[in-house]
Amino acid sequence: MAQLRIALAQTNPTVGDLDGNADKLVAWTRRAADRGAHLAVFTEMFLTGYPVEDLVLRTSFVDASIAAIEEVALRLDREGLGDLPVVVGYVDRAGLAPRVGQPKGAPLDAAALLHRGRVVARTAKHHLPNYGVFDEYRYFVRGDRLPIFRLHGVDVAVAVCEDLWQDGGPVAVVGQAGAGLLVVPNASPYEKEKDDIRLELCARRAREAGSALVYVNQVGGQDELVFDGDSLVVDARGELVARAAQFREELLVCDLDLPVSSAGTGSFPYDAGDGTTITVDRLVLSDDPLPAYEPEPPSVAEPLDTVAEVYEALVLSVRDYVAKNGFESVILGLSGGIDSALTATIAADAIGPSRVHVVLMPSRYSSEHSLSDAQDLVRRQGLRAQVVPIAEIVTSFEKEIELSGLASENLQARVRGMILMGLSNQHGHLVLTTGNKSELATGYSTLYGDSAGGFAPIKDVPKLMVWELSRWRNAGGDPSFRLQVDEPIPPNSITKEPSAELRPDQRDTDSLPPYEVLDKLLDDYVEKDMGSRELIAAGHDPALVARVIRLVDLAEYKRRQYPPGPKITPKNFGRDRRLPITNRWRETT
Amino acid sequence: MAQLRIALAQTNPTVGDLDGNADKLVAWTRRAADRGAHLAVFTEMFLTGYPVEDLVLRTSFVDASIAAIEEVALRLDREGLGDLPVVVGYVDRAGLAPRVGQPKGAPLDAAALLHRGRVVARTAKHHLPNYGVFDEYRYFVRGDRLPIFRLHGVDVAVAVCEDLWQDGGPVAVVGQAGAGLLVVPNASPYEKEKDDIRLELCARRAREAGSALVYVNQVGGQDELVFDGDSLVVDARGELVARAAQFREELLVCDLDLPVSSAGTGSFPYDAGDGTTITVDRLVLSDDPLPAYEPEPPSVAEPLDTVAEVYEALVLSVRDYVAKNGFESVILGLSGGIDSALTATIAADAIGPSRVHVVLMPSRYSSEHSLSDAQDLVRRQGLRAQVVPIAEIVTSFEKEIELSGLASENLQARVRGMILMGLSNQHGHLVLTTGNKSELATGYSTLYGDSAGGFAPIKDVPKLMVWELSRWRNAGGDPSFRLQVDEPIPPNSITKEPSAELRPDQRDTDSLPPYEVLDKLLDDYVEKDMGSRELIAAGHDPALVARVIRLVDLAEYKRRQYPPGPKITPKNFGRDRRLPITNRWRETT
Repeated sequence: MAQLRIALAQTNPTVGDLDGNADKLVAWTRRAADRGAHLAVFTEMFLTGYPVEDLVLRTSFVDASIAAIEEVALRLDREGLGDLPVVVGYVDRAGLAPRVGQPKGAPLDAAALLHRGRVVARTAKHHLPNYGVFDEYRYFVRGDRLPIFRLHGVDVAVAVCEDLWQDGGPVAVVGQAGAGLLVVPNASPYEKEKDDIRLELCARRAREAGSALVYVNQVGGQDELVFDGDSLVVDARGELVARAAQFREELLVCDLDLPVSSAGTGSFPYDAGDGTTITVDRLVLSDDPLPAYEPEPPSVAEPLDTVAEVYEALVLSVRDYVAKNGFESVILGLSGGIDSALTATIAADAIGPSRVHVVLMPSRYSSEHSLSDAQDLVRRQGLRAQVVPIAEIVTSFEKEIELSGLASENLQARVRGMILMGLSNQHGHLVLTTGNKSELATGYSTLYGDSAGGFAPIKDVPKLMVWELSRWRNAGGDPSFRLQVDEPIPPNSITKEPSAELRPDQRDTDSLPPYEVLDKLLDDYVEKDMGSRELIAAGHDPALVARVIRLVDLAEYKRRQYPPGPKITPKNFGRDRRLPITNRWRETT
Repeated sequence: MAQLRIALAQTNPTVGDLDGNADKLVAWTRRAADRGAHLAVFTEMFLTGYPVEDLVLRTSFVDASIAAIEEVALRLDREGLGDLPVVVGYVDRAGLAPRVGQPKGAPLDAAALLHRGRVVARTAKHHLPNYGVFDEYRYFVRGDRLPIFRLHGVDVAVAVCEDLWQDGGPVAVVGQAGAGLLVVPNASPYEKEKDDIRLELCARRAREAGSALVYVNQVGGQDELVFDGDSLVVDARGELVARAAQFREELLVCDLDLPVSSAGTGSFPYDAGDGTTITVDRLVLSDDPLPAYEPEPPSVAEPLDTVAEVYEALVLSVRDYVAKNGFESVILGLSGGIDSALTATIAADAIGPSRVHVVLMPSRYSSEHSLSDAQDLVRRQGLRAQVVPIAEIVTSFEKEIELSGLASENLQARVRGMILMGLSNQHGHLVLTTGNKSELATGYSTLYGDSAGGFAPIKDVPKLMVWELSRWRNAGGDPSFRLQVDEPIPPNSITKEPSAELRPDQRDTDSLPPYEVLDKLLDDYVEKDMGSRELIAAGHDPALVARVIRLVDLAEYKRRQYPPGPKITPKNFGRDRRLPITNRWRETT
């Protein structure tokens, strides 16, 4: 057996910021060297950030990524870090002839091994995910090479992210070819309670590959995704050895005892067990095991419980959306209800209360406690607040056009949306919307009204979870939050009955079933794609099933209304060309 | 050689309307029988409509499709049409065990051969497109069977749509296995001048397969896509034999002389030349050639020229969006400018002027000709018009919040958007937006203002093409249009200089380069994904390249602002669950 100290760089890159990410690569490699590491492993596409979406179809962007990986290898060497091998993700290209349907330029979701100023090995993701939030058949072609490099006597293989999730492919080939360690750069988005699945997966794949496994995951918010880190190391039997924290950057250092190899070098084809052939490229950096040294005790972070985990995800996503998109401040409407109270609190935790601007917009239907609960929250947190009554603006519309019922309720929501957008345009604040998942799913929201805004922190949070998060936050929070006050949310906002207050004495339960019933049904219908018969068989009330399906489908229809329009050229805006929202790469630079 | 009369059913199905599409299948099969056809071929996924997007992930929907294909086979037989073989697309499932990333239920983009009350052969698309408007790796698994059935002595193979566009796969297997005729159901969206590419492709594939080729394409608007038909028949040398019109339903009947086969029956594996194996299923419906009969003279429609083609695409897309989504009327703002004038005219051509409601919304910055040009258009076309001045509403906002510059310009656009949305909510009209592609691409548009609406007929039409379409329409039009007046568009709206009129003496050229320059640059940057160096090398002015790239990227960013939000569950609204906008299938029925 031979010892190796691996440094897992659980970092937060920014999409398109090739220079900034390269700076971070150098800084974190230095930290790894200072900790005595023998190998540093960064995340998937760390150098470009992930996901880069349609940027990858731009020739100039792929050129820039390839140039950047060569340059950073040289720079590491110049800065005295060349002897520490670094595995890092970037974008490369396969050099295939163009054909119909192949992404322009045949890009690869690649990883490189940097050593002594050179890129000494390259690989690329073999299994391309194209489900859930992933559209990678649109962006990449599959890799078909697996590097295995000898480091101080130990054979180290490199695979990328999805290659762990699918049967066959690189992991199966590691099992045949043999390696002491498999390192895997990832950009695996956070999902509620995904940490449990991830550990089980890594353990299973380690046993299948017959090698220890190092899983390094991105952390940070990126557009509508948030990455939780949770990097980990398991041994060849699948036992957890070390684990990083969730939702923060961390250099996780881990000492491993690994088998020594004396396999030859060269390139060898293997049947990947998925109908393809993968070529193993064997090379040697150093054959001799290290002299024995005292290992550091392994660091094993405790995973967060579910509510804490979700709250941390929301805070991080707001913080990074604001920072990575260059905003200084946010603005939102504060109604006195729990959704806007929680959204404001998350924002204050993310960027500090002095950068959170709130607007109280009472109407003729606002109850007394609405304004007083909102003012109570402003006082508790020290937010920047202003009051803009909407009654006279609403009246000015009603003088020109006759509106009643729902059209009149929507008008009030839209006047509020216009006030926020106007202040945003005037002062440069990012507008946060405050709708939760239960009401967005059922269409309990006004197009161009309360849904108007730049970021929707709780759009994926069901109403019951909104209350849970609020109670969790009032009970404590986290020392890293920028807002440090006790009980930041007015208890009355948590306990009172929810209402949109768009007509006299309105209650959510006038239009919707109780949230205890609704949230479960929405989860089964929307997340699990169950049909009506399945839903009824699962115990949901048949009349309610019919009603909620109608609400959800109608709401989805309305959300999709704009921007459809006919297609007359091969691409059109809104669907085909999809640049990341946060993107620091500029075509003109 | 043996004769066969093929009927190509170039039809307009509605997504999710299984009953309506089945009725149409029966009616058109009867028409084919009445014309003496020996084989009727319908379009890809005709029974379900195309594209069905996330509906296909619902077990109940796939069940319904499979039940519907069996039922319609029986019904054809009951109605005396069982002897006429019918090839038609529907959705089936592959029956694979679930695995990570595989679409739920492993759906197939299938086609069936119906004969004498039974489904006698099934196939499914082998090549799944996942580029441009297609996301089929998300929705389907690939088919691996190719039926070849003997009909009156002729071997007829069946492949589906994308199988024509890719090398290898079913067409290559037909070339090896041998068949007299290859029939291909399609749902191939319209693109400008795609008809030329399509004919060339069919000719090439016919030569490759060594067989005549029948290409049947869907027609009609479906959400943001429009299908142009243009069904055609080529012989084994690739010569055009028959061709249907664009943008209308047509039963194209074509007599062919085809080689007689005596190959045996059974199932045989073939190397598909793309790394996969395809199994050919040979069966016999009828071995004996037909007695000689007098063929009908082939019908060969002349393709439309480019401007006519685009105009017809826009009219059809509006007509079908309105009808398939159950609207009775549309509403739009009429400024006196050319974009709203053209949009109103397209709408009047599509659904008739009495169902087109227009609102004239003068502001303090509107010039005199704006109102008079708009009124002139109303008079020429007989639209339903009302005037709603916005000055006092704008003032009521300005009393409450201080806005200047762009924020104040946006306010005016948003007040207009709210008036249209209010009237839409009150009266049920579909709001049409009037932005063209050049201004949407460059962000010359207000979020929640002029961009607020349900359908954007000219969103993919560059400004120069807006003028071309207007001149084309004023020069004549088409006898099928619902609006039949001479010169429907006021000439002054076509010839005057474009302006948004959101501040005094504003002109488009204050903020944008001349459209002659801009439209070419946008095409190179957005459609062709050229980088800045490529753009400059192509002759564009470097300063303008930098400026337009900045405008376009910023506009895309703004368009994508809502609804991002963090992801905490495996799916979230707006991205993952994507039901077609037009959808007649109801989970609860």
